[in-house]
Amino acid sequence: MAASKPTIDDIEAAAGRLAGHAVVTPLLESPLLNETLGGRLLVKPECLQLTGSFKFRGAFNKIRRLSDGQRARGVVAYSSGNHAQGVAAAARMTGAPAVVVMPEDAPRIKIENTRSWGAEVVTYPRRGADRETIAAEIAAERGLSPVPPYDDDDIIAGQGTVGLEIAAECGDRGVTPDAVAICCGGGGLSSGSAIALRAAFPDCDLHTAEPEGWDDTARSLETGERVRIDDARPSICDALLAPTPGARTFAINRELMTSGAVVTERQAIDAMAAAHRFFKLVAEPGGAVALASALAGEVPVAGRTVVAVVSGGNVDAALYAELLAGAS
Amino acid sequence: MAASKPTIDDIEAAAGRLAGHAVVTPLLESPLLNETLGGRLLVKPECLQLTGSFKFRGAFNKIRRLSDGQRARGVVAYSSGNHAQGVAAAARMTGAPAVVVMPEDAPRIKIENTRSWGAEVVTYPRRGADRETIAAEIAAERGLSPVPPYDDDDIIAGQGTVGLEIAAECGDRGVTPDAVAICCGGGGLSSGSAIALRAAFPDCDLHTAEPEGWDDTARSLETGERVRIDDARPSICDALLAPTPGARTFAINRELMTSGAVVTERQAIDAMAAAHRFFKLVAEPGGAVALASALAGEVPVAGRTVVAVVSGGNVDAALYAELLAGAS
Repeated sequence: MAASKPTIDDIEAAAGRLAGHAVVTPLLESPLLNETLGGRLLVKPECLQLTGSFKFRGAFNKIRRLSDGQRARGVVAYSSGNHAQGVAAAARMTGAPAVVVMPEDAPRIKIENTRSWGAEVVTYPRRGADRETIAAEIAAERGLSPVPPYDDDDIIAGQGTVGLEIAAECGDRGVTPDAVAICCGGGGLSSGSAIALRAAFPDCDLHTAEPEGWDDTARSLETGERVRIDDARPSICDALLAPTPGARTFAINRELMTSGAVVTERQAIDAMAAAHRFFKLVAEPGGAVALASALAGEVPVAGRTVVAVVSGGNVDAALYAELLAGAS
Repeated sequence: MAASKPTIDDIEAAAGRLAGHAVVTPLLESPLLNETLGGRLLVKPECLQLTGSFKFRGAFNKIRRLSDGQRARGVVAYSSGNHAQGVAAAARMTGAPAVVVMPEDAPRIKIENTRSWGAEVVTYPRRGADRETIAAEIAAERGLSPVPPYDDDDIIAGQGTVGLEIAAECGDRGVTPDAVAICCGGGGLSSGSAIALRAAFPDCDLHTAEPEGWDDTARSLETGERVRIDDARPSICDALLAPTPGARTFAINRELMTSGAVVTERQAIDAMAAAHRFFKLVAEPGGAVALASALAGEVPVAGRTVVAVVSGGNVDAALYAELLAGAS
């Protein structure tokens, strides 16, 4: 059975829906950092997106594609935090009630912000409960439409607008990237962006970026089959803790990705510090792994032009200050 | 004697020179913060500008306007840090050697970055030496062209592109701001932006924003004459420590500004924390005073649409972490 996949047309349609609602984030670069790297590094700062991560894009596209009746009944989502905020904001902006199922140990700022957007938050213990089941039960009981975190064509198309914008701005500036590195949890951002980037740059290397211990996509790209990580450890990169790639997202990534980069927590934290110093951006640990892959040489920048997506910036101030003080 | 003043045409010409070199920074907003404020706050994040502050704009415009011979001989500037980096970067990008005179207690990151851009840095003690005199001597000895920090038509026109971009994006989005708050040291950014903003929005309130103790422009706007502050204390807002408004900048500000807002250090630090939380931006203390003026109610947001310029983000990581941890 050949599953349908979002096309570049679907991503352009999503961009049309998002126009005037989402921030078109600019590509940033630091000539000083470029000099150190011996190449050109462009950063796509999705931490500046509404709700502090790219997740708003997919959620808004998905909810806008529901029928009026579905929207009026409401939506339900599960998320460790960034998707939660994206759904809550998109639901509010489109007039849909929202319920969000979140792990009880999600960063405080993410839970607080989700509630502030008017969503009802249902928490669960990260170990021992299945959030998909909880969300499915709530959906059935209340007649709510699910807004999946990544494995959905409308979500993939929405997140793909990040890649579409990268391609458009590179085109405007006469830049042809040699490689693009994209943070990867379940694979919505990477697969959607890959569709848009591959359409614009047939020869560009495309890399997912994941934290050590949660490198299910990198391993799956190596083997060609979806790998599930069963011995997953706690990680500071809370935004990227999917144990296995999505079926739809992986079908796309397997076709379009060059390979998966993997970085250590230390490299992610150092990338947060680099985002602070060179780009004046607040990056959260998971949001910094693609930048880390470029800075650490996993995706080489020397002699090349590389784009790295900083996918989110939702990190508690106290933790941020602690990490910044401890970065090398 | 009627001094010439930059016109909107000069600012548009500066924007043309900067095109492809400076970042066109997007207006950002946080609906969550808007709800708290009961109005609409748009932030112009000039911390994302090349070299981490708006200063690159004026320096680049000034150096591009020199003759080829002048550029080949080189430029000299004095600065507590952000102008230094802006001049160093603009000089490098236009092929001009640069000497920058900096106080020895300027933030380390600003001195380091200025050197990294290839400029020769000459330091002096902040008390007891006159940096203008030192710079003038170096200019005379070596035949260098001065790049003044603010009181110069080309500098004013370059910084004015910030206001021009605000007006353009507001126009695109159908937004008519009720007020714009702009960080003010010597007045280059505020006066240049005021020319562009007044041309677009005849009825908009325009406010300079300064830190307590360094409110020379606010006091000068009240009295109508340039006030000099003689009892100036050390301030965490190192970017804004001009003891008196520029002659040219004040002539413009006196005509165009509604009034000057003044904020405490505590309010500036809280605005840095708000920039972190709501906008994922690294703001330096001086760069946050216009945002602080809006958050603290000095420039009221309730029931209105207000734009605040975050003018820079060059703050050492250790100090940033300390301030963030201590913000209320």
